Amino acid sequence: LILTVTLNAALDVTYRLGEVHWDQVNRVEQVSTRAGGKGVNVARVLHALGVDSTVTGLVGGATGDAIRADLAAAGLNDQMVGIAGESRRTVVIVHPRGATVFNEPGAHVSASEWAAFVDRFGELLAGCAAVVLSGSVPPGIPREAYAVLLRMATDAGVQGVLDAQGEALMAGLAGRPAIVKPNQLELGAAVGRPCGSMEDLLAAAGLLRSGGAGAVVVTRGADGLVASTPDGNWTAAAPESVAGNATGAGDAVAAALAVGLLRAQPWPERLVEAVAMGAAAVVGSLAGDIDLASYRGFRAAVHLRRL
Amino acid sequence: LILTVTLNAALDVTYRLGEVHWDQVNRVEQVSTRAGGKGVNVARVLHALGVDSTVTGLVGGATGDAIRADLAAAGLNDQMVGIAGESRRTVVIVHPRGATVFNEPGAHVSASEWAAFVDRFGELLAGCAAVVLSGSVPPGIPREAYAVLLRMATDAGVQGVLDAQGEALMAGLAGRPAIVKPNQLELGAAVGRPCGSMEDLLAAAGLLRSGGAGAVVVTRGADGLVASTPDGNWTAAAPESVAGNATGAGDAVAAALAVGLLRAQPWPERLVEAVAMGAAAVVGSLAGDIDLASYRGFRAAVHLRRL
Repeated sequence: LILTVTLNAALDVTYRLGEVHWDQVNRVEQVSTRAGGKGVNVARVLHALGVDSTVTGLVGGATGDAIRADLAAAGLNDQMVGIAGESRRTVVIVHPRGATVFNEPGAHVSASEWAAFVDRFGELLAGCAAVVLSGSVPPGIPREAYAVLLRMATDAGVQGVLDAQGEALMAGLAGRPAIVKPNQLELGAAVGRPCGSMEDLLAAAGLLRSGGAGAVVVTRGADGLVASTPDGNWTAAAPESVAGNATGAGDAVAAALAVGLLRAQPWPERLVEAVAMGAAAVVGSLAGDIDLASYRGFRAAVHLRRL
Repeated sequence: LILTVTLNAALDVTYRLGEVHWDQVNRVEQVSTRAGGKGVNVARVLHALGVDSTVTGLVGGATGDAIRADLAAAGLNDQMVGIAGESRRTVVIVHPRGATVFNEPGAHVSASEWAAFVDRFGELLAGCAAVVLSGSVPPGIPREAYAVLLRMATDAGVQGVLDAQGEALMAGLAGRPAIVKPNQLELGAAVGRPCGSMEDLLAAAGLLRSGGAGAVVVTRGADGLVASTPDGNWTAAAPESVAGNATGAGDAVAAALAVGLLRAQPWPERLVEAVAMGAAAVVGSLAGDIDLASYRGFRAAVHLRRL
């Protein structure tokens, strides 16, 4: 069983338009909504793979009700914890030549709500093999939130994947996550310098490992990923660029890495799975959707290279 | 008493950002929501002027509840009629150099919900002196909706102001509204040719009057307005361009025109009020807000010219 944590769960709202007139009035042609937040996307991928998972995090208000209704519709095991505030929305403006994302900051979480979540998280860890902690931390939650949760997981014998950025990532390292999964930009921002070259990137990954991360897997869009692990360093990439929607590809990679922990796969195998899953998510139409046929095809074609 | 009708009421959501990165991911700094739709804005202006009004229209779902809660908070007399569908939202992306509006189409209204609204509208007409019908018509409502409501109003001795565009405007003319209030672009779109010159504009207004409108008041942004009425034609404008947010200025003009009907003001007086109110709405920070001090100042300064 894999537990996914989405502290700042959202209702993802997509507006589709044939054309956008910036700084003018636009009529939206199609509105679609679904439960979102990176951890929810991870759970969708696990569900598609037939891997048991439980979804937790914080939701509230009418928007929280809409999130929970959609989790149920998707067949996910919803163990969200309620808060008094209203859950946030994200709005994505999609037109034929691009997509603009607007992320609301999220409702304030009180100290007692956070304490109630920590208690529930402790209960949910029982029976889990891995936990994936994803995304931003809503206002009101202590900055060391991910470190607290990761320590509890370690104490319960549950390995953690941390997919966060900035302060949430850096503060989370103290919780000794088994794997952290920044993208190249997030890694550069976290260590305070660009990671354009492989040398810079591996040096930055080394900093995160000396800070507490067991391994660092850096996603680089169409260039695949770079892994810095106790067993060695690798690059892995799909043989060719995949056309589609990259939103949620990182969540598919996180899902694959969690499955790798669950199954104690050797690193080369994990990385092939992670690249194939990320590419299959680009083919999938929405964040959290993966194209299973593409996934099987990509698996056989990933280029893995030991550094 | 003035009745305002907003068939496609909305929850207006404003996202404020210091900078917008189009086709990228943006973190919204500030989220604010309030009840919207053009008729709701008209009622806000009437409330600020101390003119009694009643707000009706169609709302549903959790978003409808949020709209009603905000109407109550604003001290407006809420006589909205419920529907099963979820009320729409509008999202306005505000950054220091502009604002982009995204209007959702609105929930589908069933035949029985529309019939229930028509009944309620008939009851609400009792005791009203004027009715303002504003904005788009949600999916499911017959195209002649405004004509039906305007005929009921006329039969009850209530004069109507129609502020709509396109098909809703043209189909509404059969209901013989006392005043229609398109802007210059909407007028051009309605008659199918541009109205750049005063001659074209008056010819187009004449078409709407021969179609059933008692008078036509055309708003022209900073250039004020042009009125084509049974008593003659006028232009009216503020003495100088007013800086601020033009959203809702047309709704303030509609409110002034309704007050003119209520008080049986002569046209020159109505037009001075309408220009002053529109300019005061530009000074006001949000749609439906008017700056009362500016309003009093502008009244003394409007340039009125008989054509």
